[in-house]
Amino acid sequence: MRLDLGARSYDIHIGKGLLDHLGHQCKDAGLAGKAALVSSPPVNDLYGKTAHRSLQEAGLDVHTFLLPDGEAAKSLSQVETLVSGFADAGMERTDVVIALGGGTIGDTAGFAAATYLRGVSLVQVPTTLLAQVDSAIGGKTGVNLEQGKNLVGAIWQPRFVLCDTDLLSSLPIRDVASGLAEVIKYGLISDPSIIDELAASLQSVLSTPPAVDARLVSRCVQIKSDIVSGDEREGDSRRVLNFGHTFGHALETVTDYGRFLHGEAVALGMMVAMEVSTKVAGIADEDLDPARSLLKQTFPKLSYPYVEFQRLSEAMTRDKKVAEGKSVWVLLQAVGQPVCTEVSSPDVVEGAFEAAKERWASE
Amino acid sequence: MRLDLGARSYDIHIGKGLLDHLGHQCKDAGLAGKAALVSSPPVNDLYGKTAHRSLQEAGLDVHTFLLPDGEAAKSLSQVETLVSGFADAGMERTDVVIALGGGTIGDTAGFAAATYLRGVSLVQVPTTLLAQVDSAIGGKTGVNLEQGKNLVGAIWQPRFVLCDTDLLSSLPIRDVASGLAEVIKYGLISDPSIIDELAASLQSVLSTPPAVDARLVSRCVQIKSDIVSGDEREGDSRRVLNFGHTFGHALETVTDYGRFLHGEAVALGMMVAMEVSTKVAGIADEDLDPARSLLKQTFPKLSYPYVEFQRLSEAMTRDKKVAEGKSVWVLLQAVGQPVCTEVSSPDVVEGAFEAAKERWASE
Repeated sequence: MRLDLGARSYDIHIGKGLLDHLGHQCKDAGLAGKAALVSSPPVNDLYGKTAHRSLQEAGLDVHTFLLPDGEAAKSLSQVETLVSGFADAGMERTDVVIALGGGTIGDTAGFAAATYLRGVSLVQVPTTLLAQVDSAIGGKTGVNLEQGKNLVGAIWQPRFVLCDTDLLSSLPIRDVASGLAEVIKYGLISDPSIIDELAASLQSVLSTPPAVDARLVSRCVQIKSDIVSGDEREGDSRRVLNFGHTFGHALETVTDYGRFLHGEAVALGMMVAMEVSTKVAGIADEDLDPARSLLKQTFPKLSYPYVEFQRLSEAMTRDKKVAEGKSVWVLLQAVGQPVCTEVSSPDVVEGAFEAAKERWASE
Repeated sequence: MRLDLGARSYDIHIGKGLLDHLGHQCKDAGLAGKAALVSSPPVNDLYGKTAHRSLQEAGLDVHTFLLPDGEAAKSLSQVETLVSGFADAGMERTDVVIALGGGTIGDTAGFAAATYLRGVSLVQVPTTLLAQVDSAIGGKTGVNLEQGKNLVGAIWQPRFVLCDTDLLSSLPIRDVASGLAEVIKYGLISDPSIIDELAASLQSVLSTPPAVDARLVSRCVQIKSDIVSGDEREGDSRRVLNFGHTFGHALETVTDYGRFLHGEAVALGMMVAMEVSTKVAGIADEDLDPARSLLKQTFPKLSYPYVEFQRLSEAMTRDKKVAEGKSVWVLLQAVGQPVCTEVSSPDVVEGAFEAAKERWASE
């Protein structure tokens, strides 16, 4: 699969057992010299050796760098540690950074690659479902500030992305479910058949070990690629990818990023965005039932936090997608037909929040 | 004057008294909302009020941010302070960062603009000769690591550049001379008549207050613009701008950036690059005499540091322009005709260093 961005176009390889071919793919992409292999301790324990061996066999000089697990990786001081390490290893402009891990690794290592020597080559090897279908695709990189998430970063496209679906088999069910929230999002904003098919296979996807079909990943990646290639720097068309995220980010913020995985917050955020859609975008309530039911099955134990709407509302105005003080929501006119709409009335949002909470508790 | 980079093309305004029109130019460029005015305490004392008033009169909501003076500004922790300040001020994607100052302000504020919310609009208002003819043009931004200068950064083009040559009248002579090193560089790599004309007007340029002709600035900016528009990301053609810089950076590194202004190090570096050129690139020794004599007149009190060649050589291999371990020099085949050449023999460089030292001391 190819993401078309003119001179910055690149391939996305999706399939089983691809990690063994990482070095080979680097060579094919013209990458040689030093490779900074960036991962976290748990990911490195599972897949570091395989990646290292593959890169070494392809003639690359591999240097391993470990970031802390989770959001702790996403700080400017971690980026500084990383790029200082690149400098100590004598990395040059022609060398490559390999991000092996979930979204936090891809975001942080990607930003380091975007800025070290004003930009070196980057390869994304996402190891979570969320990263494979979403964060590793499209070039967004960045870290957090105290004031908010992803406030510093760069758009930096990788040379290629390698999605080895075998790596997903080691994921805890909770992480798989978190990734499925984004899968369901693609169904809602682009291809309703994803929702039906996922509903039919949900049990095996959420079993141990999880069985995620490479075709499902491919379909999601295709949707994201098509959107990103039409809009690299987030104008209106890329913005539809944020369906459920405005409210989801607010939920993450008010719970200090400690309670929800990203996909969990997005799932609850999509429930709210669907309610707003019925109020403002004209979609019939029952058209959303299959997606609601699928979300509930995917996240049976999830619940909204006890928090005042006012705090969520404040967190939303902090969101960097706010343009000129206005809150623009991605809504659904129909399943598969998103629309960007300014929602000026806080009452509509508060009402949708209450309705979503009630519905979620009763499903 | 316009720097042609497709969708990222922008205007460079050069002339006297332009700072009064900063706000107006912002408005013309479609910039509105919040403006982060970034400068250093001394620059802010001189020009902050004028810039602030002009922006405010044009309807912008101005927030002032001060970075430390000099290289101390160029760190990731200063960038973090700056972007945190942007977040605290509620700056959004549609807002603008105005870099008012010399190269260090432009580099640091520029990098903050490149990365805050993955990139917001930037306006460069260079206040030194060096920044007006060189660092503010072309989109290079970045900060230093302990391991070296400009090791982290981004290519981020401004929305426009405003070079008010009146601002140069407050510069100390030493800073004017430092900027002239880059002017002389443009003569050597592109337009030999710059050298003759500068030689004729040097006395008034280096008087108090310094009288720098806007036309001289324009000619230099034109040369840099032409080169950058052909090569935004430093392939071979942009690399000619580094004439004298390989050795110059090494001189700055081994003296811990405490002894030389950038232009001073570049002047001494160009003396070495000229010697290497006579050995390797076939230029006749006497063709370089006008430039050498002009450099000596511009920097009458400057001298090479007492330092072993080995340390300079090591610093050069650290330089980020090193590609695959090879040291590529910009040399002159003739005055105005640069060529990029790999110089593999350290003896040639050492010989050139000794010859340049001797010549400089005896001129």
